[in-house]
Amino acid sequence: MKFKIAILGTGNVAWHLGPALEDAGHTITEVFGRDIEKASSLTKRLYVAEAKDDLDFSDSEARIFIISVSDHAISELADEIILPEESILVHTSGSVGLDILGYSSAAYTGILYPLQTFSKERRLDFSDVPFLLESDDQTTLQQLKKLAKSLSPHQYVIKSKDRKALHVAAVFASNFSNHMLRLSEEIMARQGLDFEMLKPLIIETISKSLELGAKKTQTGPAIRGDFGVLDEHYQFLNYNEQVAEIYKLISQDIIDSY
Amino acid sequence: MKFKIAILGTGNVAWHLGPALEDAGHTITEVFGRDIEKASSLTKRLYVAEAKDDLDFSDSEARIFIISVSDHAISELADEIILPEESILVHTSGSVGLDILGYSSAAYTGILYPLQTFSKERRLDFSDVPFLLESDDQTTLQQLKKLAKSLSPHQYVIKSKDRKALHVAAVFASNFSNHMLRLSEEIMARQGLDFEMLKPLIIETISKSLELGAKKTQTGPAIRGDFGVLDEHYQFLNYNEQVAEIYKLISQDIIDSY
Repeated sequence: MKFKIAILGTGNVAWHLGPALEDAGHTITEVFGRDIEKASSLTKRLYVAEAKDDLDFSDSEARIFIISVSDHAISELADEIILPEESILVHTSGSVGLDILGYSSAAYTGILYPLQTFSKERRLDFSDVPFLLESDDQTTLQQLKKLAKSLSPHQYVIKSKDRKALHVAAVFASNFSNHMLRLSEEIMARQGLDFEMLKPLIIETISKSLELGAKKTQTGPAIRGDFGVLDEHYQFLNYNEQVAEIYKLISQDIIDSY
Repeated sequence: MKFKIAILGTGNVAWHLGPALEDAGHTITEVFGRDIEKASSLTKRLYVAEAKDDLDFSDSEARIFIISVSDHAISELADEIILPEESILVHTSGSVGLDILGYSSAAYTGILYPLQTFSKERRLDFSDVPFLLESDDQTTLQQLKKLAKSLSPHQYVIKSKDRKALHVAAVFASNFSNHMLRLSEEIMARQGLDFEMLKPLIIETISKSLELGAKKTQTGPAIRGDFGVLDEHYQFLNYNEQVAEIYKLISQDIIDSY
């Protein structure tokens, strides 16, 4: 099933999603941006899409309207947009509920959340991206499944009550693991050591963890209960009290988890 | 330059290092293990190596002796081993100094530390492994460089004073990033959600971070200064005080780092 779709927003997700939807055979009819220049730079990546900076879509041929803007900007956009009858309005955020679309003129609402980190400068293969779907309306959910399936084989229907857990889990898995690399980079730089030498270890650690599960693959002084080394490391980090505290707390949690 | 080498130890590093050294053209003459069965299971992976459970190597043809055992077992082994004249004795640990080999009968000592995580069930390509080398003797250091170069293009000469910083950095990069995945797995499991859906995000996060640097690639509620979400997440984690504390402390450190 091929859809006619309008995209509202010009950020990283819209930037990748637009062309991917066209590659999958759908038609992007319009791209909305408050800044028309930004909307135009995205329509240049598309076949027939028209750039727009007003929210009157009453004459649009699109059936699905995808809001892909910062979390804090979704509600204003949803409230203002004028939609044709029988439209489906969705957003692509993982941390905002369905209810934010409740005051819109849409007949049906949903969430189409690509669980991935997007940046304009990196190519992204959508067939690896899991799509997390939500809607109160079964027919809409079926439509969103078809749409997601045309982009990726990985789809999950999410319940509202699970969204927060999923987001917290993603923060640990992505933001916090990245911060561990950041702290590691800083320790190396401070000592004048080349961070390159740690990269193969990081790649193998994460690959192994994803293959066998992080519980089975933990190594290091904490899981060995090597309190001598833990204390030495804690002392070593005394130039930054907060980082020393992070070292202590995570080590304690590793000790307590086994 | 091809070496004759004896391996002392039968753990994960020895298991991979022995065959890799032979593939690089060196000869493994003996494998020592306190448990002769374990030594034999490693010699079966090698051409001519003899399994031994005694430490008298006075008649060995080897010139380089590699101790590859748990950190706490290095010193006893180094003290007991009887070596031929002009031998080089090295260990493969990243957290133990050169001085631990000081009481041995070796003419020269050094460290040949493969900075990687090893497990018997996973194949490992040594050409990706950085070797960290150390010796007080320049000729020995040259020999170790040649040996390491035969296994991998990545070698770094490390000074004793840098070893601790490197180890602390590796704990953050590997052990702690793995623990972040562990905590994420647990949050998902507790909610009955499939951890599979987070794997593409993790892979992309780490790839991007290694390519562009973790400072540039940080995302999430902390760096956005989204205190509403941070507080919601903290409340959500109230079933485990220590994990909630980890969430708070790392978020604070992300906020403070930008």
